[in-house]
Amino acid sequence: METNFSITPIATQLSTAIQRKINGKTKPLGALGRLEEVALQICQIQQTLSPSLQRPHVLVFAGDHGIAHEGVSAYPQEVTWQMVMNFLNGGAAINVFCKQHNIELRVVDAGVNYDFPLDIKQLIHNKIQKGTANFARESAMSLQQTEKCFESASSIVKRIAESGCNVIGFGEMGIANTSSAAMLMSALCNLPVEKCIGRGTGLSDKALQHKIDVLSKVFANRGRSYSPMNTLAMYGGFEIAQLVGAILQAAECRMIVLIDGFIATSAYLVAQAMQPTIKEYCIFCHQSQEQGHQLLLHYLKVNPLLNLEMRLGEGTGVAVAYPLIQSAVHFMNEMASFESAGVSTKV
Amino acid sequence: METNFSITPIATQLSTAIQRKINGKTKPLGALGRLEEVALQICQIQQTLSPSLQRPHVLVFAGDHGIAHEGVSAYPQEVTWQMVMNFLNGGAAINVFCKQHNIELRVVDAGVNYDFPLDIKQLIHNKIQKGTANFARESAMSLQQTEKCFESASSIVKRIAESGCNVIGFGEMGIANTSSAAMLMSALCNLPVEKCIGRGTGLSDKALQHKIDVLSKVFANRGRSYSPMNTLAMYGGFEIAQLVGAILQAAECRMIVLIDGFIATSAYLVAQAMQPTIKEYCIFCHQSQEQGHQLLLHYLKVNPLLNLEMRLGEGTGVAVAYPLIQSAVHFMNEMASFESAGVSTKV
Repeated sequence: METNFSITPIATQLSTAIQRKINGKTKPLGALGRLEEVALQICQIQQTLSPSLQRPHVLVFAGDHGIAHEGVSAYPQEVTWQMVMNFLNGGAAINVFCKQHNIELRVVDAGVNYDFPLDIKQLIHNKIQKGTANFARESAMSLQQTEKCFESASSIVKRIAESGCNVIGFGEMGIANTSSAAMLMSALCNLPVEKCIGRGTGLSDKALQHKIDVLSKVFANRGRSYSPMNTLAMYGGFEIAQLVGAILQAAECRMIVLIDGFIATSAYLVAQAMQPTIKEYCIFCHQSQEQGHQLLLHYLKVNPLLNLEMRLGEGTGVAVAYPLIQSAVHFMNEMASFESAGVSTKV
Repeated sequence: METNFSITPIATQLSTAIQRKINGKTKPLGALGRLEEVALQICQIQQTLSPSLQRPHVLVFAGDHGIAHEGVSAYPQEVTWQMVMNFLNGGAAINVFCKQHNIELRVVDAGVNYDFPLDIKQLIHNKIQKGTANFARESAMSLQQTEKCFESASSIVKRIAESGCNVIGFGEMGIANTSSAAMLMSALCNLPVEKCIGRGTGLSDKALQHKIDVLSKVFANRGRSYSPMNTLAMYGGFEIAQLVGAILQAAECRMIVLIDGFIATSAYLVAQAMQPTIKEYCIFCHQSQEQGHQLLLHYLKVNPLLNLEMRLGEGTGVAVAYPLIQSAVHFMNEMASFESAGVSTKV
């Protein structure tokens, strides 16, 4: 199986009418730049001239990685569960930015190497296993586990869609997951692995070289697969695989899908390889400072809204970009037209 | 006289403590990128580790330009007053974005070629004259008028500061004011005028060439002055001169000063030439698509937060960037520290 998702291409019959409405607003043609693109895309997704954003959500998937044991991260693995607790206690950057913009935040244990008490109700318990296998030695996940990730992420996204949400972004937490993302990128874009590797949470020059050495050896030993599903199983992580499933499901539900930084884009890459149509539903929010992300965005021919030199994951790029999505919707609904405001048009 | 503003350099004795607080937040060092820079700057301006944003304002100055009669704009001059009415009626882009972010919007008639009824209370009546002189033939403004612009803009900004506002951005409206801004830039940066000229509200290739021809001839006939005050009088506009005074006054009041696009940056350029210390109080919000702005920002060695390919003026770049300023303040005040959250630090 590849995937069972059924993603509808977006109908374009309203495009002319939407563009006419945008052009009729009291501003020079095209003067709202990227916001006009976003408005057009959202109107097309929603098949309307009067778009709306309902119950925005950010879903953060957390998981641990066997590759962390190769010393590829600047932080110890326990930071994954500690940060999950920080999310649940409201202390992380993503909490602050979601609160600022009235975004509902949900945290998913996709496979953290820690036993969270089951009575923590704010946590969605989707654990596949306590961390992936070390992909330096064996496949990070089995195909069955990968499929299970898709299923469980899908069911969360479906529930959220049913609750009335029509705009959703995804974040992640997982020590060593820039290594997974770099491997996915290298394999699926057919790019040299060293071009896909960055400093993650802040490696020194020496530690970065070690990460490059480790991951280059993996390719030398284990080779590449160009099948998105096999590649995902071989080098991915539980949080990344759940991200892939979540992105696909959100597009199936015709939601506006907000894509965060490097890790989320690597999940998008896998999802797009499976179902290219998802691109029409996605808005890329932030170009990470992580080396590799710029190249990956270039490969995907997408241009994120923001470049704030952040490199934090968690969905923070989505959350800080969200007011721009709102601005696009607001100007469509609230700005006067040349006609209604009695403003003269071009000479 | 140059200016009477007294701008205090920002004390740096808190810098280490501020940076320590930023670094202690639960995120990799530097991972919030530009937001960390903004947080540091705001904390320094406010001399605190717990910054706050109070009663944010956007002030839009509107004025007309004699140079419009040379056919340098894609829109007729009457659009200036019509857009002022649109601002007052709530229908323009700046209204929508200010409303979205709870920014108080004030509109100033700095010199529009129209008689607004004096009973329109939402309009601040600061008219110097109904449009500047045509700077192709004579100085756009007298030195006296320019000084009057400073005085009247200052008194508005002082009143707003006294009302409790500590963060203020400035926008403008004025058909043909990209021509004024290009002349100011060319004169004060000593750059060829054609490098400073763009399409404004959307000139065709032919009309752009006409604009370049007209403005190049002006320099050939009238020459340059490197005195900021003389240059401002010669080529500026009433709304631009009021912007200059407003920026200087806001810095004197130790407010956070938000700088918009091309026109606002040209006003900043004049203000900085008079009082370089203002730079410490200013945050550049958006790189306009207007040709010239990128070069001007490069000249000033500043890097705006956003590049959304907008070119609308009105202060829209300030308004859409405002939530990022808020995010910087919120993370400083609300994020947990490694210590408080019990998260392990770097290995």
